Amino acid sequence: MTRSPLAPAAFPDLPVIEGVRFAAGAAGIKYADRTDVMLVELAQGTTVAGVFTKSSTRSAAVRDCQRKLGNDAPEGRAAILVNSGNSNAFTGAAGDQSVAAICDATADALSLDPGRVFTASTGVIGERLPHDRIVGKLADLSQNLTDAGLEDAARAIMTTDTFPKGACATVEIDGTPVKIAGIAKGSGMIAPDMATMLVYLFTDAKMSQPALQALLATLTDQTFNCITVDSDTSTSDSVMIAATGTSGVDVTDSAGFTKALHGVMLDLAHQVVRDGEGATKFVEVRVSGAASDEEARTVGLSIANSPLVKTAIAGEDPNWGRIVMAVGKSGAQADRDRLTIRFGDITVAENGWVAESYSEEAGAAYMTQQELLIAVDLGLGGGMASVWTCDLTHGYITINADYRS
Amino acid sequence: MTRSPLAPAAFPDLPVIEGVRFAAGAAGIKYADRTDVMLVELAQGTTVAGVFTKSSTRSAAVRDCQRKLGNDAPEGRAAILVNSGNSNAFTGAAGDQSVAAICDATADALSLDPGRVFTASTGVIGERLPHDRIVGKLADLSQNLTDAGLEDAARAIMTTDTFPKGACATVEIDGTPVKIAGIAKGSGMIAPDMATMLVYLFTDAKMSQPALQALLATLTDQTFNCITVDSDTSTSDSVMIAATGTSGVDVTDSAGFTKALHGVMLDLAHQVVRDGEGATKFVEVRVSGAASDEEARTVGLSIANSPLVKTAIAGEDPNWGRIVMAVGKSGAQADRDRLTIRFGDITVAENGWVAESYSEEAGAAYMTQQELLIAVDLGLGGGMASVWTCDLTHGYITINADYRS
Repeated sequence: MTRSPLAPAAFPDLPVIEGVRFAAGAAGIKYADRTDVMLVELAQGTTVAGVFTKSSTRSAAVRDCQRKLGNDAPEGRAAILVNSGNSNAFTGAAGDQSVAAICDATADALSLDPGRVFTASTGVIGERLPHDRIVGKLADLSQNLTDAGLEDAARAIMTTDTFPKGACATVEIDGTPVKIAGIAKGSGMIAPDMATMLVYLFTDAKMSQPALQALLATLTDQTFNCITVDSDTSTSDSVMIAATGTSGVDVTDSAGFTKALHGVMLDLAHQVVRDGEGATKFVEVRVSGAASDEEARTVGLSIANSPLVKTAIAGEDPNWGRIVMAVGKSGAQADRDRLTIRFGDITVAENGWVAESYSEEAGAAYMTQQELLIAVDLGLGGGMASVWTCDLTHGYITINADYRS
Repeated sequence: MTRSPLAPAAFPDLPVIEGVRFAAGAAGIKYADRTDVMLVELAQGTTVAGVFTKSSTRSAAVRDCQRKLGNDAPEGRAAILVNSGNSNAFTGAAGDQSVAAICDATADALSLDPGRVFTASTGVIGERLPHDRIVGKLADLSQNLTDAGLEDAARAIMTTDTFPKGACATVEIDGTPVKIAGIAKGSGMIAPDMATMLVYLFTDAKMSQPALQALLATLTDQTFNCITVDSDTSTSDSVMIAATGTSGVDVTDSAGFTKALHGVMLDLAHQVVRDGEGATKFVEVRVSGAASDEEARTVGLSIANSPLVKTAIAGEDPNWGRIVMAVGKSGAQADRDRLTIRFGDITVAENGWVAESYSEEAGAAYMTQQELLIAVDLGLGGGMASVWTCDLTHGYITINADYRS
């Protein structure tokens, strides 16, 4: 698959997080000789938190993680095992058996409690996961664990992704550097709440499991739940964070750590949009003046999910009438005569009509850019939100009209 | 534009409705020499009802109709004036002035009360309607009114439509035939509640305005609000019905009339889907076993609006996993292990997994058909709903990525 034109120049140089080791391998789950399994080992004392898809048809692995998180004892070591090529979703009781088999085998290979093994699977829905192939690779994987393996891990969890996704930050707290590194996969079936999206975050900060869980949930709402590629939501979405505590710095209630983690998560969220299937434009939809933040997000998502807006962007057509349409259909409070629409710094429409200063040429020239800002002010209150999306192109149709064959 | 492959063989032979006369003309609103105005004159005593878009940015014409309907005196004659080429939506106070100018000129030309003139405009949003061109055609139009002009009228209101849409029924009530004829336009920006869709229904039945309004609202929910092309909702959607009473038959509470009108409206709704932009497949999504009818409709629309489901259909890929995904994301109550999915008569999935009898070959063969039934039973209760949609193809992208230029 051709690398997305919106991809970052290179994979970032991620820091080593003490207490975290990675291995990646090719288990032949869907294709031979393709890296499709990632194993992560987490040192004793690591706390783990997770946020998952709300789908009522979510996968067996998601259900298993939800059962375990918060009930696990952080005293022991922990592990994360992820495969691509098969999502093990809608596979009935056999799906639960596969998860149990993988957890047991991982626990055996690393000599730890199966209650501390967290798994995820991504790929085709409804086909039985050949878990024996994963189990058969575990001895290999556990012998190849290395603290420098994060980029390989990012590659192992890719499906229709055209580039591996990583982000990092180092923040100094009370004179000690605290590190955060994260990887993500996802390019289609991306929408609030979440995406065919797997995200793994690692930090050497110290935080209790309940505090880590609360922080992750809050920041997920501000980042991964504000992106949309196609309005579809996967059965396997997972965002997990592991805090090893090896820096010795307790970051509970640290504004600096929260800001740094937010930055890493937003960076990864943007990379997922940048790899949106068929995407050629990266678009921020910024809504202000709404009756509430929630209403601003509703309007933003209505614009960002509108096929007519997304195809206009693909065609570099400054068709702001479709933005008016998307505001109108959102269900949020709006008043035609108070609405202002801007493309970047260009005022397009205000006071219920096209702006006097606006020219179609200026709008058309703006739309040729690869990175776009669509700003909408509703003129009603102080509610604000930004959401991020991409355009809807022939590439999306080509990728998705023939994914399984 | 090439005629949709899903179009009916021919425009139906619509009956003359006594008391209704039509004229169509070319006012040059967007293109020269293209029929773009329709005028309808309604005899004295005709009751008129309408259902409109719920968009908060709805057009000036829609607001004007909403103000007038139910407050008008059925004793006088009435008129409907519709233009294509420009929607007169998001045109500020100028938009209201255009509507007033058109209503006044129509009232003058036909010597009737401007409070009984109902207008609609469809086409590009945000550009000032050149209403003088319409006003300048009114003398012409009023001299060419004919009771046989319904097919020309259907053509006058087309925008990106590839075929004119008409449907009719005659039902015998107490020994007297009562006639219904309707026309519609719409092919993109089609979704509940409604569409860039204009529908005009005419009958020689007799019914009070409040009863006609209630019946139209109920039947619109069961027909036009159950179709979706792209989940987008227009600022101009209007469904209007005019009952001349010329048959002398009062149809209040007549089950036969209700059924016939439902049939005409469903036929027109299906034709709108069949003309869905770029459509190559006509799809019924039938949901049963839901906790309520409302939940069944939610699940049906989640499937029918999913870009991943719609692209799979375009690719003739029996990717039922995406249907599981769409059920899961709908927010409606669902239980993986009680879900049954069928393609036509083929059971694809049941009891939380692929059906034992299912073969990919059978599924793939089914998907090659032009008319598809996707049936989902949730196994929870008695709630049922059908929604209708089409596939999402390269044709949709081509049409919408370059509509304005």
